[in-house]
Amino acid sequence: MRPPVTLDDVKRARSVIADLALRTPIVPARSLGELAGCELLLKAENLQRAGSFKVRGAVNKIASLTGEQKARGVIAASAGNHAQGVALAAANAGIPCTIVMPAGASIPKVEATRGYGATVILHGDGFDQAMTYARRVVRESGMTLIHAFDDPAIVAGQGTLGLELLEQVEDVDTVVVPVGGGGLISGIGLAIKESVPGIRLIGVQAEAATAVVDSYKANHRITVKGHATVADGISVGSPGRITLPLVSRYVDDMVVVGEEEITEAMMLLLERCKLLVEGAGAVGLAAVLSGKVQVAGERVAIVLSGGNVDTHLIARVLENGLAHAGRYLVMRVMLEDRPGQLNRLLTILSSADVNVLDIGHLRHAASVHLGQVEIQLTLETRNRAHSEEVWERLRSAGYAPYESEPVGAQGPFPEGTVR
Amino acid sequence: MRPPVTLDDVKRARSVIADLALRTPIVPARSLGELAGCELLLKAENLQRAGSFKVRGAVNKIASLTGEQKARGVIAASAGNHAQGVALAAANAGIPCTIVMPAGASIPKVEATRGYGATVILHGDGFDQAMTYARRVVRESGMTLIHAFDDPAIVAGQGTLGLELLEQVEDVDTVVVPVGGGGLISGIGLAIKESVPGIRLIGVQAEAATAVVDSYKANHRITVKGHATVADGISVGSPGRITLPLVSRYVDDMVVVGEEEITEAMMLLLERCKLLVEGAGAVGLAAVLSGKVQVAGERVAIVLSGGNVDTHLIARVLENGLAHAGRYLVMRVMLEDRPGQLNRLLTILSSADVNVLDIGHLRHAASVHLGQVEIQLTLETRNRAHSEEVWERLRSAGYAPYESEPVGAQGPFPEGTVR
Repeated sequence: MRPPVTLDDVKRARSVIADLALRTPIVPARSLGELAGCELLLKAENLQRAGSFKVRGAVNKIASLTGEQKARGVIAASAGNHAQGVALAAANAGIPCTIVMPAGASIPKVEATRGYGATVILHGDGFDQAMTYARRVVRESGMTLIHAFDDPAIVAGQGTLGLELLEQVEDVDTVVVPVGGGGLISGIGLAIKESVPGIRLIGVQAEAATAVVDSYKANHRITVKGHATVADGISVGSPGRITLPLVSRYVDDMVVVGEEEITEAMMLLLERCKLLVEGAGAVGLAAVLSGKVQVAGERVAIVLSGGNVDTHLIARVLENGLAHAGRYLVMRVMLEDRPGQLNRLLTILSSADVNVLDIGHLRHAASVHLGQVEIQLTLETRNRAHSEEVWERLRSAGYAPYESEPVGAQGPFPEGTVR
Repeated sequence: MRPPVTLDDVKRARSVIADLALRTPIVPARSLGELAGCELLLKAENLQRAGSFKVRGAVNKIASLTGEQKARGVIAASAGNHAQGVALAAANAGIPCTIVMPAGASIPKVEATRGYGATVILHGDGFDQAMTYARRVVRESGMTLIHAFDDPAIVAGQGTLGLELLEQVEDVDTVVVPVGGGGLISGIGLAIKESVPGIRLIGVQAEAATAVVDSYKANHRITVKGHATVADGISVGSPGRITLPLVSRYVDDMVVVGEEEITEAMMLLLERCKLLVEGAGAVGLAAVLSGKVQVAGERVAIVLSGGNVDTHLIARVLENGLAHAGRYLVMRVMLEDRPGQLNRLLTILSSADVNVLDIGHLRHAASVHLGQVEIQLTLETRNRAHSEEVWERLRSAGYAPYESEPVGAQGPFPEGTVR
């Protein structure tokens, strides 16, 4: 049986997308490579137009439509990157575009999708309801549904990233790719493994949504009910019928990473590499840094698949990351409520070379007696050891400091912040 | 008189720095270009090793030293990017390196400099005292002082960025460059204007520190006492003796930008372009977006000179930027302190399609009577018009909401956060 998509399809897609999609740069990450014990090269697809690789597949798919299909327009269901990729590709082709997003979709993502000229319909509580609605519109209108991954033209389009990577990185040993429904890694697998079979290809999913990993290991399609995750862009219930056989054929191994590993990777990418990468885009680095992929001494390329993060979430991830790295300390200390007591405390902190970010006075809690005041200190320290030193100095001076709930303690995605 | 540095020096520097410095990518910025009415291309030097262009000059300078000078080692005074650039270049050359930083230098920058193997001395209240101390060490030790900008080898090294830009961007009309002491723009001026004289070169400083702009307009060196600025990396008291004549010769115009324009540019670079750029690195985009440089219909290259921003500051800039864009609303509303009142309020907010980020209860302020509770709401809205709609809906429902101090109201750099 002829496979539904081939290396030649990917090569043809290359020229189809050339006018709209960028050839995104490779960014070397030496300090992170030292952490991982390998040479790390980042394929910065977060710098792609519309903020992710999705535009590659969308342009290729739309180019494959007949004139009549184009005239009737395209429709997609998505709360995120696929919405923006399809909207941009449709605008570029000058054809009508409707995007169905769940009612709770993030405001900036809705605005960005509208910004590309798409008609946005907010419908349903989640992706499944939005998709059901989109299918109904298709039946009534004759629009073409653009699937986010389970389509040969989409897979071929995403595969162009793999061809670029082969040109940009010589002698790569291992390529690490985020996996949602499997469209991106199927395309990259075709591009890379059919060209240089010796390159190792690793897929990464979030612990909160492991449908493709589970299906890959079981060798048949498994549907998984996922949990909320900072990597919401790769939270997919089941792999595609087209993509799973390609994943099985081309991917050498698959691993999963946890929420803290993902947010730490996001923070390192921002601090060390100056790149804003969304949770879904950071799972590859998370897998390498956590040691779940063995890469000692290798030349490793990690695909940073997208950079669309809500601004409010960035701030939370940073606070969370600082707290986990022991560089952000929130503590409470009880003082007598009279002049000079706060100054004495601050003198000790100053001598410990710690930076005071915030001071709060709590006089009204039930545990605080008259004549006392509880001080909440938010401190910046060099690292965990420095934080320990601060605790010790305060105790030696007769204080009884105790840990207060850090800003990011409930994780970076409380209800209402991540959708 | 032979000029102290020539185009040939820049071309020679190119091969000297090739092993260590990256050829940083050009990132097209279409949505920002639409805002500015021109084609915008970003030279992403924030992705350079050690986080800024400084490593280019430092490598070139260290390569110019004699064997004896190298053996004695190098020293520099800096609180920021120059420190990291010199430390990395010295480590690469295998020579001893000492960096004098002011006592209040940012903890992550001190750690990064130490991370490259430099000996860090914390001394003095600010840059001037650190520099005085470094000069004393030079006299006593025979180490070579690496000046941040006023040195022909430094200027030639920074100029390599200009050569790359000429290769990477065809037919550029205008190049916009951040200016601190003038080293970077002098080098870029040499590279560009001696190769293609028709390209327009614009320098940008922050309103808080305008020494080079003032000197350029007065045609002699002026010393300016600067203020605190989010663009601390280009806060320099006076231009160099070597750089000012080069700036006068090659720069077509200079403009200044304000703090809010800079933080807005930083936020747009992060949200739209997925690039973390420090304040000093974002002034070029700020100048273009504010209309201070006329670029309608042109192809414009903006140099993003560095990306070293303290993590705590990023969060503040984001909050500040959201507040200024009208997408972040902090308000207080007085309620009767009994069941159902909060729910009624939230139902109205929900119908206005607004996202509630935080709710605080204030029962203890003097202005709050018994039986009342003041609620502080932190809300995310689509834009300013949407915010207005929220105010209006609450007023129509009989509430008397009033504006509360937004998180970023005091500007992104309160005392103790930015050094």
